[in-house]
Amino acid sequence: MASADGIVGPKQMGGNEPQLSMAPCAAATSSTRPRSATKSLPRFDPGVMETYLDDMRDMRARVNELFRQHPELLPNVEEGLSKEEHRDLVRRALKVILQAGYSPLEMLARDPRKYFYLGECLSMVDLSLMVKSGVQYSLWGGSVLNLGSEAHRRRYFDDIAQFRLPGCFAMTELKHGSNVAALQTEAVLDVLSDEWVVHTPEEGAIKWWIGNAAEDGRAATVFARLKVPDPNGGSKLVDHGVHAFVVPLRDPNGNLLRGVEIRDCGYKVGLNGVDNGAIRFTHVRIPRVNLLDRFASVDKSGRYSSPLTSQARRFAATLGELTGGRVGLTAGSVGVLKGAVTIAVRYAALRQQFGPPDCPEVAILDYQSTQLRLMPLLATCYGLHFARGLLVDKYVDMKRTREPKLVEEVHALSAGLKAYTTGYTQSALSTCREACGGHGYAAVNRLGALRSDHDIFQTFEGDNTVLLQQVSAMLLKEYRQQFSGAPLTASYHYLRSALLGALPNNPLVTHDTEPRHLRDPAFLAKALEYRTARMLFTLSLRLRKHGPKLGSFHAWNKCLDHVLSLARAYVESVIYKTFLRAVAGCVDPECRRSLKAMSDLFALRLIEGDMMFRNDEYIAPAKAKAISRLVVALCSELRGQALNLVDAFAIPDHILRAPIGLGGNGGAGPQPDIYREYLAAAGFEV
Amino acid sequence: MASADGIVGPKQMGGNEPQLSMAPCAAATSSTRPRSATKSLPRFDPGVMETYLDDMRDMRARVNELFRQHPELLPNVEEGLSKEEHRDLVRRALKVILQAGYSPLEMLARDPRKYFYLGECLSMVDLSLMVKSGVQYSLWGGSVLNLGSEAHRRRYFDDIAQFRLPGCFAMTELKHGSNVAALQTEAVLDVLSDEWVVHTPEEGAIKWWIGNAAEDGRAATVFARLKVPDPNGGSKLVDHGVHAFVVPLRDPNGNLLRGVEIRDCGYKVGLNGVDNGAIRFTHVRIPRVNLLDRFASVDKSGRYSSPLTSQARRFAATLGELTGGRVGLTAGSVGVLKGAVTIAVRYAALRQQFGPPDCPEVAILDYQSTQLRLMPLLATCYGLHFARGLLVDKYVDMKRTREPKLVEEVHALSAGLKAYTTGYTQSALSTCREACGGHGYAAVNRLGALRSDHDIFQTFEGDNTVLLQQVSAMLLKEYRQQFSGAPLTASYHYLRSALLGALPNNPLVTHDTEPRHLRDPAFLAKALEYRTARMLFTLSLRLRKHGPKLGSFHAWNKCLDHVLSLARAYVESVIYKTFLRAVAGCVDPECRRSLKAMSDLFALRLIEGDMMFRNDEYIAPAKAKAISRLVVALCSELRGQALNLVDAFAIPDHILRAPIGLGGNGGAGPQPDIYREYLAAAGFEV
Repeated sequence: MASADGIVGPKQMGGNEPQLSMAPCAAATSSTRPRSATKSLPRFDPGVMETYLDDMRDMRARVNELFRQHPELLPNVEEGLSKEEHRDLVRRALKVILQAGYSPLEMLARDPRKYFYLGECLSMVDLSLMVKSGVQYSLWGGSVLNLGSEAHRRRYFDDIAQFRLPGCFAMTELKHGSNVAALQTEAVLDVLSDEWVVHTPEEGAIKWWIGNAAEDGRAATVFARLKVPDPNGGSKLVDHGVHAFVVPLRDPNGNLLRGVEIRDCGYKVGLNGVDNGAIRFTHVRIPRVNLLDRFASVDKSGRYSSPLTSQARRFAATLGELTGGRVGLTAGSVGVLKGAVTIAVRYAALRQQFGPPDCPEVAILDYQSTQLRLMPLLATCYGLHFARGLLVDKYVDMKRTREPKLVEEVHALSAGLKAYTTGYTQSALSTCREACGGHGYAAVNRLGALRSDHDIFQTFEGDNTVLLQQVSAMLLKEYRQQFSGAPLTASYHYLRSALLGALPNNPLVTHDTEPRHLRDPAFLAKALEYRTARMLFTLSLRLRKHGPKLGSFHAWNKCLDHVLSLARAYVESVIYKTFLRAVAGCVDPECRRSLKAMSDLFALRLIEGDMMFRNDEYIAPAKAKAISRLVVALCSELRGQALNLVDAFAIPDHILRAPIGLGGNGGAGPQPDIYREYLAAAGFEV
Repeated sequence: MASADGIVGPKQMGGNEPQLSMAPCAAATSSTRPRSATKSLPRFDPGVMETYLDDMRDMRARVNELFRQHPELLPNVEEGLSKEEHRDLVRRALKVILQAGYSPLEMLARDPRKYFYLGECLSMVDLSLMVKSGVQYSLWGGSVLNLGSEAHRRRYFDDIAQFRLPGCFAMTELKHGSNVAALQTEAVLDVLSDEWVVHTPEEGAIKWWIGNAAEDGRAATVFARLKVPDPNGGSKLVDHGVHAFVVPLRDPNGNLLRGVEIRDCGYKVGLNGVDNGAIRFTHVRIPRVNLLDRFASVDKSGRYSSPLTSQARRFAATLGELTGGRVGLTAGSVGVLKGAVTIAVRYAALRQQFGPPDCPEVAILDYQSTQLRLMPLLATCYGLHFARGLLVDKYVDMKRTREPKLVEEVHALSAGLKAYTTGYTQSALSTCREACGGHGYAAVNRLGALRSDHDIFQTFEGDNTVLLQQVSAMLLKEYRQQFSGAPLTASYHYLRSALLGALPNNPLVTHDTEPRHLRDPAFLAKALEYRTARMLFTLSLRLRKHGPKLGSFHAWNKCLDHVLSLARAYVESVIYKTFLRAVAGCVDPECRRSLKAMSDLFALRLIEGDMMFRNDEYIAPAKAKAISRLVVALCSELRGQALNLVDAFAIPDHILRAPIGLGGNGGAGPQPDIYREYLAAAGFEV
């Protein structure tokens, strides 16, 4: 029995140093893991993993090479760039990319996989560059391509592609972001002159946050309420709702056109290399043909016609064409997460602090607290990488087949994954900064700027809270369609039995604490499916209950937390299933072992964190505790392969740039002395 | 029974707008709460609440007035300040404060309550200013006052107080932050010249992140290993461990002294108004009397003596004198949290988006999701405000009485509250930015800069992860002392029965779902105490079990997550008890009702989030669900008083500055039109 004195860590209240005794150095110095740690994962070749992760390595190598030749295009934090200087840098970088023969618009139109891949490549170069390109090609170009007719495409394609016609996507207004249907900008047809008169009727309708508007934009896709004279001769205009119009903003010399007022939105939290502006239109006249008329057209007489039968359907079709932006943000966000995790893991493996008495200090990555911080991030990063791949593949299929079922699925998946990925990455950026301590706070180490730049990914192209609601709405719609016409009881019994089927079919399972069972994909997948099905079932019941009393809007609001949780649960279940397929598809046994461990960790963390499994007695208390122990053990196992796992992301040093995170030499040789890089960055001679 | 069509929210997958039917406008337009919402809290007078929160209002009013007269001293984000410009601004602001008759060093020495209060006042003015002042007075001044003798105080006090002698606190080194005992800088006594030779023996020992060093510092308290000749005549020097020395850095003209090399640490994630530098010493000679010798002295012959018997005790006493810094950071962090919550709540109450069909849109603060985001922040902000008050009072008592028991308590409390508060505020800043959507991303609305500036509060003056370990170490030490000498079984039985005593004494209680019970402070306090006691008990058992096998260091590491959870649980229990006293002490019945609701929400969220209560069957599943429902209901209740609750923080508009958060006119009149402020900020004529 140990004496009471032997059990306590940091004894001195005044000191930071644990004064400990009896600790064997050996454990810390040989493998830097205590002997009691779980078994270790087999070492794998990061190059093999890289190949498995990435089938477009050549393209990335070429893009990276471009910036090796043009280091002056990478924003240098030590220069304290003004927004004007940063914008200029971004403009020049975009030009270099075009001159090297890459055409993002071509890629978007003909090979979207390449387009999204390019976005991920640029994300660790400079997020402002990635977003500026996204505004020009995905938003401005994409809206012309997807919402316009062949004539529009012919007229604008080359000029947009070559950045000869920089443009904007003018949707958001000062008072309306998420609620696009309530936009107030109007486009009224003047039949006599055959023109639309685009006008901002009140201050709240000023277009706001419009990328490319403050300096560069020469034209914009403007979302405005389409109004035409009453065909029945009434005196009032008929409002057909929000449509998209091409509106010129500046002449070739950059001078604003008549009736167009633009203000710079000023400094933002991040992304200051993108020139966001606010636009007010005062009776701006544009030709009738500037209506992007794929889903609705207006003839010379002012007659409105559309192949789609309702305003709601046209609106949905219009917005549905813009899912590409969300796919792009998901890819960019995964790229940022890879970069941040790379920096944090490398630094934590090198930074040493404290240790057993009379022994060398241990790496902070050997502390349980650091492992619990960083290993789940690493596992989730891999999961999101594969989920991003699924999303891109489905998007490409959808564009090819235009199959309605797939359109819906991609819409929900892009909304859900965009919200989940960007939310996850954002909080991971803070975790990484904190894990890197004081040196993580040096601007040169990038975690702060990445956090500030990436932050708005959670909000633009659909606020995450709104997007998650769309996911749940789709799940409910599917559920409803399945039971359309059937009495409530039928669907109730159906889903109830489905749920019961997902319950462990043996009470022993509820109590099974064996790692073999806890790491069984069948158990994990079933548990995550059970969670989604249960939430869907109970949400539907609650909405049915509250709807009649409160009306649907307030009933929905009363269940809003439930709605958001359902969407997250669904997305997590999709990510896990994708992760499992990726594990199964990996033929290299060593790589597969690490992938399997990460997929287990991903799923177990979710089960560990959700009270529902306990409240339902889906897992017994002893099992819950065993899961928590297993999570700790998996983090410890993964620590041994952590450096290889980030090396497999293959971000070269000249792109990663953070001195404390360097070492991206394809796993060749030992980690470089990051402190020397850091000393040099501060101006010391080394 | 509702038709299936009636139950779903946003029907259109392509659209953002919930297309709903049957919702009564009335509910949304009159009180903006659906009729089914829980009862509302009585309206209270924010002025009364403000008085209850703050007994030094006059001082704050005067400080705020200073910056009304000097708006040019507030950093203007639209100017894209370089670090040099921002540093200059901070220097000028500090001068204005001194010229107005405030002497932070006098306050620190004679009335620390005022010192910490001033820090909180400055936190929403400019965090760089608060930190610069903290470096000069709390760190540089405080180290001289607390670690030096009367002679040091006499010599330096006035020059430090008047900023005639700007100084630094040179503790952290490139390779050592948390592990202060392992610092490598050395001070070797040269008996012949009666001088210390201060030297940086290797690059890893370069002093790093030293505030005030890059531009202003003329001297520094340098922490270095004190080495003297062996009194027994041996050839090796005797290393007495880390001590503090006053080392001059620059002459009065600002030129570096011989042997002192200083580099600018460059841009940081935030706080760029503070000039952090890296310092390398090359055989710098200082007089022997420059040792700050309160806890140890060295005579002319090199004989070392100390009233404290061991190196560990001297080290603890030295660091123990620096708790004031943590109290200051806690106060500043609470100030930031108040500001951020004020901005987010005001904007969410004004911003409208979506609504029932044919009805006005509703404020985003009326969405359950926004309430669940912001109301717990508001409640915790109040809780932390009161806990900060407790900490300051105890600190003042400790300084007065120097009672050893109180010294230990204040050390643990300052470590725990600093870690908890700064961690909480940091994540709250992200939540507030996200809740404010796109407009929260405008730099002018400050949430980004606050997040970037505040971030390092989690790391400096003790990394939060390390500080929390100190809290748990103290709890274990107390526990150990209580049972010192007793056999393990005795302490086991004692704590076990204490735990059982904290269990609901009636199985019905475990299942009691009545709000009256769930909101009973006796239930809530007991539950939180149970949690802490249980974690302490089980942690002690685990450490006893693993210690013999692994050694204390690795045993501690194996339980590290448990250690950190225990510390957080303890701090939360302290905050809640303080909150309860504040509720009880409030004589205004309307204010008290809101305070009570917030204290309930604070405690219930903690119980809701901790699986342990379920795993122990401390609460039954039905009770867990009732708690979740009550959390939602309390957030909805508090929404009605949310504007008053932030008005009571009384941050005037010219200090808050964020256009979307304005309205701090002492609760007089309606909220101003923040959109107009915002339009004006972007350059539109309004």
